[in-house]
Amino acid sequence: MTEKNEQTALLLLGCPQVPVQTSMVLYLAHGLSERGIRPVIAGTTAARKLMEVADPGRHYLDEMNDLDATIDEITEKKRDFDLCFVFIHNDSGIAYAGTMAYISKAWVYALIFGEHAEELAEEIEFPCEIVAAKATHNPMPLKRRLDEVMQWAAVSKR
Amino acid sequence: MTEKNEQTALLLLGCPQVPVQTSMVLYLAHGLSERGIRPVIAGTTAARKLMEVADPGRHYLDEMNDLDATIDEITEKKRDFDLCFVFIHNDSGIAYAGTMAYISKAWVYALIFGEHAEELAEEIEFPCEIVAAKATHNPMPLKRRLDEVMQWAAVSKR
Repeated sequence: MTEKNEQTALLLLGCPQVPVQTSMVLYLAHGLSERGIRPVIAGTTAARKLMEVADPGRHYLDEMNDLDATIDEITEKKRDFDLCFVFIHNDSGIAYAGTMAYISKAWVYALIFGEHAEELAEEIEFPCEIVAAKATHNPMPLKRRLDEVMQWAAVSKR
Repeated sequence: MTEKNEQTALLLLGCPQVPVQTSMVLYLAHGLSERGIRPVIAGTTAARKLMEVADPGRHYLDEMNDLDATIDEITEKKRDFDLCFVFIHNDSGIAYAGTMAYISKAWVYALIFGEHAEELAEEIEFPCEIVAAKATHNPMPLKRRLDEVMQWAAVSKR
């Protein structure tokens, strides 16, 4: 696969208040890489530090960028992605997903977790694929939903 | 190094309510492995699932066991470890560390994090090395303390 044809996915992380986020990001980054889709992470400083500490041998993480700088680049049409996974556990996560649906040509997946997953999912009024599970400490419900999504992601890109 | 001389470290995880735990466990497991100390994780189901999902290629995790079953094995003198790192963010974490200091011959490190790290550290009245930092979302303060500990761990075993 040449670099020009390489598929890319943006993984967008807000403030990491819920334990499942770090695990799910590493899992998704690995799954995407295995399907030939390069994962690019954009997150707040704390979210990026949590990822870097969790992957000291750099087996899963590839490019890591600042959240706001990445959104600026997409807004200015300097860069874009094929897929975008937004990790959401509060209102600001919903706002980020809405922004991505508006500024990017990427297909947006809203991965909603935590205590208020269902209420948050109901707030979404923009085009995206909603993947929601009330997961806070046990990642398995969200992982199962994500496994389905990664099948779709792989199929839609072939 | 023969298996008989292999150093082992138990990483003991309670309920994973604070995001830094998953990152710090993976980081510590990696650091110990690099120093020739085999990491064995004992945790609740949710804690173990968070670890497994975070390391899908199994680059960092080695043996993973149930928390209570492991404590039973040590109590019954069927098994023991050279080092024991207890991840603590509430009173039950302190109780686990106290139990380990009592039943195991391992040198116990109490890794205390989260909102109430300082108050929890003051509760400890048993022999152990206290490593405390008020880290909830940003893992760096605890990581810096842990880097010092891993130096001691490596030195003490030579």
